[in-house]
Amino acid sequence: MTRFNTYLVNGSFDQAISPLDRGFAYGDGVFRTMVMRNSLPDNWPQHYQKLVADCAVIGIVCPSAELLMSDLQQLFAIDEIAVAKIVITRGEGARGYAPPAITTPTRAVIKSPMPQYSMNHLVNGVNLHVCNIQMAHQPKLAGIKHLNRLENIMARMEWHEDNIFDGILLDQQDSVIECTMSNIFARFNHTLITPDLRFCGVAGITRQRIIGLAAMLKLNIEVKKISLDALLQADEILICNSLYGAFQVSKIGDATLPQHGLAKTIRSALNV
Amino acid sequence: MTRFNTYLVNGSFDQAISPLDRGFAYGDGVFRTMVMRNSLPDNWPQHYQKLVADCAVIGIVCPSAELLMSDLQQLFAIDEIAVAKIVITRGEGARGYAPPAITTPTRAVIKSPMPQYSMNHLVNGVNLHVCNIQMAHQPKLAGIKHLNRLENIMARMEWHEDNIFDGILLDQQDSVIECTMSNIFARFNHTLITPDLRFCGVAGITRQRIIGLAAMLKLNIEVKKISLDALLQADEILICNSLYGAFQVSKIGDATLPQHGLAKTIRSALNV
Repeated sequence: MTRFNTYLVNGSFDQAISPLDRGFAYGDGVFRTMVMRNSLPDNWPQHYQKLVADCAVIGIVCPSAELLMSDLQQLFAIDEIAVAKIVITRGEGARGYAPPAITTPTRAVIKSPMPQYSMNHLVNGVNLHVCNIQMAHQPKLAGIKHLNRLENIMARMEWHEDNIFDGILLDQQDSVIECTMSNIFARFNHTLITPDLRFCGVAGITRQRIIGLAAMLKLNIEVKKISLDALLQADEILICNSLYGAFQVSKIGDATLPQHGLAKTIRSALNV
Repeated sequence: MTRFNTYLVNGSFDQAISPLDRGFAYGDGVFRTMVMRNSLPDNWPQHYQKLVADCAVIGIVCPSAELLMSDLQQLFAIDEIAVAKIVITRGEGARGYAPPAITTPTRAVIKSPMPQYSMNHLVNGVNLHVCNIQMAHQPKLAGIKHLNRLENIMARMEWHEDNIFDGILLDQQDSVIECTMSNIFARFNHTLITPDLRFCGVAGITRQRIIGLAAMLKLNIEVKKISLDALLQADEILICNSLYGAFQVSKIGDATLPQHGLAKTIRSALNV
């Protein structure tokens, strides 16, 4: 029965979001997106840890893992592979930016179909648009996956071509940060470089997992500032997120990139 | 009857916001806050014009003035003075940053009590905290009152003292931008200076009205970059928004400021 519903709000199939919810009013909350298989989320410990950490940055106490897991298991059937999105907001409040003294966070769990990735992405890699919008530095919010995503939307509105998979985002100093829905890695010889996200960007859990796997793959890791020109000199480039795992990048704008199977190796190490 | 309801969503007292609404998912929308008297919003032409303009920046077609006015008149009784907030979002959409090809904007109209401003604010002026968080530059979103307001929330969480009315926000170049819920003007002799908002901040309609009234008050207007140190040398300072009109600033952090009745003159010119 549950498989016909698309969402649960605070554990109920009958609730929606109040316009007084601070998530709606101000984007005052955080979210996660993950793959569900057999009614279980892939990499749940990492997702839940990140959710708790992101909530803490903006002063929200994250609902318990038990509560969220119970929501997920009500919404997702044992025989389906689908996408779960968990949104946690600060809850309802009176008008004004000051959070209420006592708040009850709102939790929404939403089901979406698993995207159908083209076989072509696995075999030949993906093309990236170079976005015109440049990301703003805000060290107090950098790294977390909060609900203030207008920059990503403005970036995503820049292209309509079906053969572009994602857009690469630079900051206002022309350093590469990430893609609109992905993190990015570049291999130079035996070193994997991924951009420093202390000033902007979302530090996703697949990025974190790849950083953790590098030693096993005999690769050094450097988290640092890198320009687009420097990135384009890489031996190969991949992008990653929790849904597709990792894809080789075949083109960035007009530049065609070398490919040596890094994404395939990483996918295998990630077990996707 | 209607006065017992707090909000209307898409013209209905029975609706709420879907978790699939892009306003909730990404802060993909804009809003306005205004005073209602006799079932009519103060300065409606300016508010509606700003709503249309802000929507256009992010590619939303604003619902008609007639539709919004009809919502307001359903929600607000003739004999009450209260605050109306209008939220316009891009509407519902599937997961992902790309806006759907066809969208129907969501409109929420919310009633809140009119804040009870202290007589002390009118007589002695208000104190401002100097916020630690520094605003990020994003020229593609600057000036508009969008739903991505985590910076304002983080700023507002910095103080708890009842005798602080608002917090002054600087950008990362240490220029003064605005306050968390107000714009700011400083008078130097016969010139009113207000910060340039091309890189961050919200260009409110009361700020725009004051700029328009300056000539009548025999004041020059300069919209420019100004540091906090330079601001503190002003002959007097005021802050403004659509609810309280204008208040004289008596203190910024530890600095006590001169007062010569500018806010009173401006309130009178604004007709508040």
